[in-house]
Amino acid sequence: MVKAVYSGTFDPVTNGHLDIIERASKMFDEVYVTIFGHPTKTALLTIEERIDLLNIATKHLDNVHVDASTSLAVDYCRKVGATILLRGIRNTSDYEYESNMAYANRYLDSSVETLFMVTSPEFAFVSSSRVKEIASFHRDVNDLVPACVAGVLKKKYEEKSL
Amino acid sequence: MVKAVYSGTFDPVTNGHLDIIERASKMFDEVYVTIFGHPTKTALLTIEERIDLLNIATKHLDNVHVDASTSLAVDYCRKVGATILLRGIRNTSDYEYESNMAYANRYLDSSVETLFMVTSPEFAFVSSSRVKEIASFHRDVNDLVPACVAGVLKKKYEEKSL
Amino acid sequence: MVKAVYSGTFDPVTNGHLDIIERASKMFDEVYVTIFGHPTKTALLTIEERIDLLNIATKHLDNVHVDASTSLAVDYCRKVGATILLRGIRNTSDYEYESNMAYANRYLDSSVETLFMVTSPEFAFVSSSRVKEIASFHRDVNDLVPACVAGVLKKKYEEKSL
Amino acid sequence: MVKAVYSGTFDPVTNGHLDIIERASKMFDEVYVTIFGHPTKTALLTIEERIDLLNIATKHLDNVHVDASTSLAVDYCRKVGATILLRGIRNTSDYEYESNMAYANRYLDSSVETLFMVTSPEFAFVSSSRVKEIASFHRDVNDLVPACVAGVLKKKYEEKSL
Amino acid sequence: MVKAVYSGTFDPVTNGHLDIIERASKMFDEVYVTIFGHPTKTALLTIEERIDLLNIATKHLDNVHVDASTSLAVDYCRKVGATILLRGIRNTSDYEYESNMAYANRYLDSSVETLFMVTSPEFAFVSSSRVKEIASFHRDVNDLVPACVAGVLKKKYEEKSL
Amino acid sequence: MVKAVYSGTFDPVTNGHLDIIERASKMFDEVYVTIFGHPTKTALLTIEERIDLLNIATKHLDNVHVDASTSLAVDYCRKVGATILLRGIRNTSDYEYESNMAYANRYLDSSVETLFMVTSPEFAFVSSSRVKEIASFHRDVNDLVPACVAGVLKKKYEEKSL
Repeated sequence: MVKAVYSGTFDPVTNGHLDIIERASKMFDEVYVTIFGHPTKTALLTIEERIDLLNIATKHLDNVHVDASTSLAVDYCRKVGATILLRGIRNTSDYEYESNMAYANRYLDSSVETLFMVTSPEFAFVSSSRVKEIASFHRDVNDLVPACVAGVLKKKYEEKSL
Repeated sequence: MVKAVYSGTFDPVTNGHLDIIERASKMFDEVYVTIFGHPTKTALLTIEERIDLLNIATKHLDNVHVDASTSLAVDYCRKVGATILLRGIRNTSDYEYESNMAYANRYLDSSVETLFMVTSPEFAFVSSSRVKEIASFHRDVNDLVPACVAGVLKKKYEEKSL
Repeated sequence: MVKAVYSGTFDPVTNGHLDIIERASKMFDEVYVTIFGHPTKTALLTIEERIDLLNIATKHLDNVHVDASTSLAVDYCRKVGATILLRGIRNTSDYEYESNMAYANRYLDSSVETLFMVTSPEFAFVSSSRVKEIASFHRDVNDLVPACVAGVLKKKYEEKSL
Repeated sequence: MVKAVYSGTFDPVTNGHLDIIERASKMFDEVYVTIFGHPTKTALLTIEERIDLLNIATKHLDNVHVDASTSLAVDYCRKVGATILLRGIRNTSDYEYESNMAYANRYLDSSVETLFMVTSPEFAFVSSSRVKEIASFHRDVNDLVPACVAGVLKKKYEEKSL
Repeated sequence: MVKAVYSGTFDPVTNGHLDIIERASKMFDEVYVTIFGHPTKTALLTIEERIDLLNIATKHLDNVHVDASTSLAVDYCRKVGATILLRGIRNTSDYEYESNMAYANRYLDSSVETLFMVTSPEFAFVSSSRVKEIASFHRDVNDLVPACVAGVLKKKYEEKSL
Repeated sequence: MVKAVYSGTFDPVTNGHLDIIERASKMFDEVYVTIFGHPTKTALLTIEERIDLLNIATKHLDNVHVDASTSLAVDYCRKVGATILLRGIRNTSDYEYESNMAYANRYLDSSVETLFMVTSPEFAFVSSSRVKEIASFHRDVNDLVPACVAGVLKKKYEEKSL
């Protein structure tokens, strides 16, 4: 049984993330989609809001589990029995950042392997930051994020404009 | 059961390749190490020589199968029942080439996923071409390739010098 | 009146090229699509075949002119009265090559400006070489090239297999 | 009539920006040089100061208009009737950032095209940040920015040292 | 007599830095290892702590001098009589940043030359930030930094957890 | 006494190379400018022609020695007593190639250090290949190469056109 952890901030989950999650759920027996890090003031959504949105967005995928953790990614992988840490890569900048992180994680625990998947081309420009930037101008983000996320973003930025 | 194909030219197999193969053999149930392409005049080793060296170098790995194919990689994956095409990445140039190839393979057959692993840092400069260049100066390549390969290279380049 | 030259080898024209041509035809008053370079043995198509295919693929665009030249690109631009040399960019590697070429062209004639457009994401992996590689395996390239090109490629590679 | 918008923060305008503006003014019928974004505490100059400096630096260019906007760039382009959003690129990092932004802008409004020009090599290292860093050490920036900007920077950083 | 300055923030010094320092001490007659910049709130260590750690880590190298400065790097080089500003490069991102800085420094004083060395592959992922991140999880950083630094980090992050 | 070897193909030497050589001659006590590799059919100039042109172009630099070698670069460095192998870098692609080569050379002989210098921005696009391409169109290359080289190129390409 091959278990993989797909880690991220997911503030909020985008269609780019979802593309990776759906492809991963076909490849591996179990996929943990896990939010890492402590809650921060600069985040738009609380950890709870992000978990809720991820759960709604992935509810059609039986072998996908949504979680959050403040541990090191490799420690979390070991805890849930995953040998694979999966990362999506959109472009060369992502690759440079992620390959460094992969070396660091390997130093921390060489029993966990980092694997990269390239994001589908149509989602290459879709980051959580970009989505929030576009939503902050009250523009439609329906092609960039799951419907549940689009609704939450619309509401959040309407409140901010008041 | 998760099967992966690790494809390459392997002219010859290096310790960088072997690092990927060993790590892959721990992650996946079955790993096919497959030489793709037609025999070419510019290769140093015949397909048969490369298969022999790969077999010797991986004989300690029970779930690794050495093979050669002139098919498209995705067709080969489907034939052996693999859903994963595994590629090692040494640096940014590799990433740019491989991400393009991954998109092309996805166009050809979206049921096969390309996954990338980063080569261990100490092997980042070790390509088959570099190894052959160094061996052509009759220099020691024992830290760069399996022992069986070092022996073959030594002999090949001694013959060329005669 | 702003005239632009879009230069390339077009061996053969792809949907990535056509995407750039269509967008350019909306932006500029006249667009010259020009094949540069001498005929080479390594090309699949003759200059005449490439011109024919470009003419068919762009016949719906009134302000697009297909041409071929063995001059320097900047000399050709001056000859047809174009101040803009347009280049499509698919990825970082393309950018590095093209920015160098832009500096060289500026050295040769600073009255011609090189402008870059990014290829639509879905065509980022589509180069003439990749298309030919896929077609050489007798695989469908209908989503990658105009219909007229797909037909010619099919025929060329069927002949080669005989 | 081809209108282009050249957008930036211009905190302050540099000779690298001016090089792009002068070349653009020759290529296009009308060029809008537009400061985007809200005033921020981290900026050195107010929007008004930046507009003044841009006006002085471009007063020899009849078809160049200086403006500021808090809209999305594509909305602004549509408002002034521009079909081209022009961006200067200094290096590979710039390209990666800008190509992502171009895809996002295309998602927002596909009737506006982003075009890139490479900055002249002698200005490749000249960013507004670098200029401010050098000026903060009370060093001469006369070769890096228009004379009017050099004067303002000198005065700003003399005040800060008091 | 060839003198070189190796500049950095050294918050804290890592084995990657030390690798460059040791190699530089063999190449040049005198090497100044100099902390540039003003003390900042975001730093973990004070300038004094960093100097102490650098002194301990380099005490086996007779021709290495540890120092701190708030001047421009080129002014400092001139002051100590160094014609070489040495920078370590770990990857492509580093190169892009450093080449820009080299051009800026050359603008400021063309009598000082910037030279780059590539960090040993095993230290390519080791930045001061990464080390602090790992240490903040109370994980072992003994293979990443000199022993004296590992001790200080351990203590600092134990205090933070109280 | 610090000796450096600046290696290349120099087919032909350009102003970009000469910029590095002149800066190196100020930094190091002795500089060897050495052509590596065997004569090839694809080269425009013979080794002897390249040596002659390098000698003319560097005759104003007393501590610069022109040479040619078919050894490995590190073996040559050791032979002439140089501890530094100097390489010029024009852009990110160059960096990626050269950093790999540096690691290979370090594997071969860790007593020789590779150092990189960035080419002056105005020469960033000037490679021997580009110069030959421009000269083959009978265009002026006087700003790109030393006068002696411009003369030789002019003659070579006039002969080819006959």
